[in-house]
Amino acid sequence: MNIGIIGAGTVGGTLGRAWARRGHQILYGARDPSEGRVRELREKLGADAKVGTVAGAAAFGEVILLATPWSGTEQALRSAGNLSGKIVLDATNPLKADLSGLALGHTTSGGEQVAAWAAGAKVVKIFNTTGFGNMENPKYGETAATMFYCGDDEAAKATGARLAADLGFEPVDAGPLAQARTLEPLALLWISLAYFQKQGPNIAFKLLRR
Amino acid sequence: MNIGIIGAGTVGGTLGRAWARRGHQILYGARDPSEGRVRELREKLGADAKVGTVAGAAAFGEVILLATPWSGTEQALRSAGNLSGKIVLDATNPLKADLSGLALGHTTSGGEQVAAWAAGAKVVKIFNTTGFGNMENPKYGETAATMFYCGDDEAAKATGARLAADLGFEPVDAGPLAQARTLEPLALLWISLAYFQKQGPNIAFKLLRR
Repeated sequence: MNIGIIGAGTVGGTLGRAWARRGHQILYGARDPSEGRVRELREKLGADAKVGTVAGAAAFGEVILLATPWSGTEQALRSAGNLSGKIVLDATNPLKADLSGLALGHTTSGGEQVAAWAAGAKVVKIFNTTGFGNMENPKYGETAATMFYCGDDEAAKATGARLAADLGFEPVDAGPLAQARTLEPLALLWISLAYFQKQGPNIAFKLLRR
Repeated sequence: MNIGIIGAGTVGGTLGRAWARRGHQILYGARDPSEGRVRELREKLGADAKVGTVAGAAAFGEVILLATPWSGTEQALRSAGNLSGKIVLDATNPLKADLSGLALGHTTSGGEQVAAWAAGAKVVKIFNTTGFGNMENPKYGETAATMFYCGDDEAAKATGARLAADLGFEPVDAGPLAQARTLEPLALLWISLAYFQKQGPNIAFKLLRR
């Protein structure tokens, strides 16, 4: 498959090289496809890497991988030209520069609202990301489903974690309470998969490690 | 541990029963603790279930589990009284009534913005929820990490899924493009775990099934 990659950073480069090894044709689109810059990119992407303009990569690809930093995304898409009918695999995230949150659609959470209502309480966001069937039995064969949690009080979080472990979950600390902004959408993902995507409720998230 | 449970629905009931079996003391707080209602709740929660007022459950618990529907959450917390210093395990999600999204902090996504900028393109949100090391090698022992994706065009999604499978991922369809509102926060969760929680980048999400 011909794949045009817009954004030759770590994600674009890693995917490009991995796909190339599997026989796909890759053209990277560079914002500045000058000779010097292309040489520089090839040091990173591999000596055989084909680098052209953003518009060239967009025209080349049956599939366009968009792997730009969020701040460059609008301009990159403008440079790409007409993408009507193209398959665009969007690997971007509208991250704030310090990774503290999303710049779009993501300004608060239920967890934070709960903390405001329950003045002075040590709020832990937990048990919100999976179905009750998993709370009944979090074991998938030998594997314990993960229970993500977050909060601003370490002792309260440890208590939440212990209570999750009591049930057989593997508790995983997701950070401060503002991470409810990620755990609440995770719940929505679970719901979407279980019900709208018809996978049913016998699904659970697991954090793999190696 | 003494646990007060506010919200005796499926989540509150399941957790309460499971914790009770493991030796914890449970008191459910009911909005209406009349004799008839308590009898009704005990049919669901178990004949031995202790049911009191919301304020009683809040006072009883070293730990309060909040498992109310979002629409009842503010009122439940008002009924609970002073929670200062209490550990509140917040299992709620600010879900819209039809589960189509979150009622708070969640009004759009980068994926949808990309689709607006790339007019006419078939946008698939994919490869945004994990680190590049996992894109290089998505295998954790025998287990393939999951790659969630979403979009509004089925053929484009199938292409994205095939390209993820090419790399060794297990692709999982998360639904329409608006699900980018869940996959983008999932990326933020990954980032938080890998970097802020110091788990490092050799972590990945897996959808378990049974």
